Amino acid sequence: MQLIFLSGGSGKRLWPLSNNARSKQFLPLLETADGKMESMVQRVVRQAREAKLQAQITFATNAAQRDSIINQLGSDVDIVAEPERRDTFPAIALAVSYLHFVKQCSDNEVVVVMPSDPYTEIGYFQTIAKMAHAVENNAADLVLMGIKPTYPSEKYGYVVPVRNDSLAFSVERLEEALPVSRFTEKPTTEVAKELLREGAFWNGGVFAFQLGYMMHIVRQYMQASGFDETYARYGEFPKISFDYEVAEKAKSVAVVPYSGKWKDLGTWNTLTEELGKHAIGNVLMGDENENTHVINEQEVPVFVNGLRDVVVAASPDGILVCAKDKSETIKKYVDGLTLRPMYEERRWGTYKVLSDVEYQPGERALTKTITLQAGKNISYQIHHRRDEVWTIIDGEGEFVLDGERRKIQRGDVCIIRREQYHAIRAITNLTFVEVQLGNPLIEEDIERFDYTW
Amino acid sequence: MQLIFLSGGSGKRLWPLSNNARSKQFLPLLETADGKMESMVQRVVRQAREAKLQAQITFATNAAQRDSIINQLGSDVDIVAEPERRDTFPAIALAVSYLHFVKQCSDNEVVVVMPSDPYTEIGYFQTIAKMAHAVENNAADLVLMGIKPTYPSEKYGYVVPVRNDSLAFSVERLEEALPVSRFTEKPTTEVAKELLREGAFWNGGVFAFQLGYMMHIVRQYMQASGFDETYARYGEFPKISFDYEVAEKAKSVAVVPYSGKWKDLGTWNTLTEELGKHAIGNVLMGDENENTHVINEQEVPVFVNGLRDVVVAASPDGILVCAKDKSETIKKYVDGLTLRPMYEERRWGTYKVLSDVEYQPGERALTKTITLQAGKNISYQIHHRRDEVWTIIDGEGEFVLDGERRKIQRGDVCIIRREQYHAIRAITNLTFVEVQLGNPLIEEDIERFDYTW
Repeated sequence: MQLIFLSGGSGKRLWPLSNNARSKQFLPLLETADGKMESMVQRVVRQAREAKLQAQITFATNAAQRDSIINQLGSDVDIVAEPERRDTFPAIALAVSYLHFVKQCSDNEVVVVMPSDPYTEIGYFQTIAKMAHAVENNAADLVLMGIKPTYPSEKYGYVVPVRNDSLAFSVERLEEALPVSRFTEKPTTEVAKELLREGAFWNGGVFAFQLGYMMHIVRQYMQASGFDETYARYGEFPKISFDYEVAEKAKSVAVVPYSGKWKDLGTWNTLTEELGKHAIGNVLMGDENENTHVINEQEVPVFVNGLRDVVVAASPDGILVCAKDKSETIKKYVDGLTLRPMYEERRWGTYKVLSDVEYQPGERALTKTITLQAGKNISYQIHHRRDEVWTIIDGEGEFVLDGERRKIQRGDVCIIRREQYHAIRAITNLTFVEVQLGNPLIEEDIERFDYTW
Repeated sequence: MQLIFLSGGSGKRLWPLSNNARSKQFLPLLETADGKMESMVQRVVRQAREAKLQAQITFATNAAQRDSIINQLGSDVDIVAEPERRDTFPAIALAVSYLHFVKQCSDNEVVVVMPSDPYTEIGYFQTIAKMAHAVENNAADLVLMGIKPTYPSEKYGYVVPVRNDSLAFSVERLEEALPVSRFTEKPTTEVAKELLREGAFWNGGVFAFQLGYMMHIVRQYMQASGFDETYARYGEFPKISFDYEVAEKAKSVAVVPYSGKWKDLGTWNTLTEELGKHAIGNVLMGDENENTHVINEQEVPVFVNGLRDVVVAASPDGILVCAKDKSETIKKYVDGLTLRPMYEERRWGTYKVLSDVEYQPGERALTKTITLQAGKNISYQIHHRRDEVWTIIDGEGEFVLDGERRKIQRGDVCIIRREQYHAIRAITNLTFVEVQLGNPLIEEDIERFDYTW
């Protein structure tokens, strides 16, 4: 069985902890049973393994999230990053092509596609096992998970099973795959109420099918001879969702119901409901707060008192103070902020922007703390428009400047002028302060070269 | 006429903007008529000048505030900094000794002592002129300002004038200096109500007297031959307030009433009432806030929505989110924080701590941005227990290392190992990033030497 996790999104709703480089599913805010902190992707992967799904995992994602996935999940998962952002159908088409061409999975292997950020429990993964079983038994071309609705929501898509009084809900029937008659997207409350009476489910975005079924659809758009060609011609796939392109067009669809915990922790309001602690990070809580959560990723302390139903979140990107019931409004406001991410996870480690100031028109200075994980390196590169000064503050490594390599450690200084080739490798975990000077300072001012360590 | 402003206090109540190095009276949060921002000390000095008091100004303060006063008020005011913190009587005794010994003021010159942080209007300074006039006319040995009470407060000291029905309040009588019968400190509300019926005033902490009168009292504690001796023997003065030591013991005291605006902007609740703007700094205000103030001294944005009667304040020291009516509680909580100030005004400019982290036991790194004003320099010095790396990011200056002087500018790097003598002088305004490496990193690890630029 192949499990494809979809991981996308720019994550402005959980600003300032999420940003263009760190979507909500990578925030390490959830508490495990043994008190450790984990992110949503770490949670779903852990749950999938605990449910003994015996699945190989592939992440269908974008380039910006690749490093976060490697950082948080290690090398146990495959990653297929789309070369440009399109929609869920192309992303799944690319991942399925990877399974077909690169992993050489057989056409009758069961593939389950699911989001990487649902907040659920073990029953969710048991339902996935049932879906896979239904596909194996040819119950339908496409089997999807139906979430038992708790209220007539206008937000979700609905899956309506074939009307059949003999299918009236009972615990036994809920275990089965039910034939689907139609889909309805985001109905009015009135229509939603009617749908609930018909026994409709929310569409949870979990789909199971045989690899060959999806490859057949992929080939209708692209007759590629291999994965590299599929990747190169990715722009030819239409910008359309999997729901529209596959689910709604499928001739034979079944739904397997799930009625356990299922939440989208996509706003501060919903996320804080699932946080084990009211305060995470350097926080001083006064005695007069009520239902207030504080998450602080800055070094300096946050003091909060006299608040009710408020979320406070601070990160190197900014500071949020918002009534929980207004947390839906955040995206609207912060979309206007065009700031660079001040904190990023990369495959070699992390960096944090400490200061980013234009002193004079054309004299910009950016100060970062960079931590390189032991054994990792930053590629051999040059910049055309900026100088960099690195002061090593912890650990040991090797530094290369214009081909000359030397050992470096705490207290050493690396001065890199524009057009100088340079690279750095961590022997132990290595932390340094970087000051960039240039005009303008752009991320793209970088050319990478090969270097053999 | 000599005006002595008392400037002290550690300023935890307005945390995180105020700290041990920056008391509330130095926060540049008040708006002038022409839209500029000024601090409380800038405001009172401007008001004193606008009221044409014709007074020379001396600040009685402590060493930690000296640089802030010079920075904010320039060299137009004299500064007498006590060598150790005692109380208001010793502080005023030292300042008066300075007027006597150093400025050689005559014994009959009028001295007015006042706080440096009252939020008042022009009438306050006109009242001071009347007090000075009363002292000149020998109305009493000591003349103080009586604030017309607006409610029976338990917080203030009261000044009770001689009971005399002919002194019953009228606008005319309020203009006069009234003889004082007694003082009462912080009464119960019941007693305060009775005091109000007696025509008592709040003691506003403004005192006028002839220099000779106070020098006579000073000499009862110390027969010094000059200011230097007074300064050196400062510890011999008793730790007692001016109210107890002078006002309550004085044989002849008069009070001049003042009934205009008089506020102590000592908590966020009272301060925000006088802020012209709801947002100061990089702030994104949502549309659903009510009576909420945000002051942001960090570079990154603060977004606030859905709040009511809340103050949000962010600085390099930390972040505060507090219901305004709980702002009295702040001091209690943040007194427990033993963090170093992350932002300081010095006589040569300012610095801001960007990061302060202990990577390993004994491997501490402190990163700062330092701005030196054109023409100013940091003293020639060595450190015994830390290295420093400076990356110049704006401006031009001169750097001295072990006696060798060189020009420096944007992009240059100064590496200073422990035991190396070094100094820096700004030609234009000069900004650099400093990384300190040491164990432990203590402010006192510094020895200063003479250097002729």
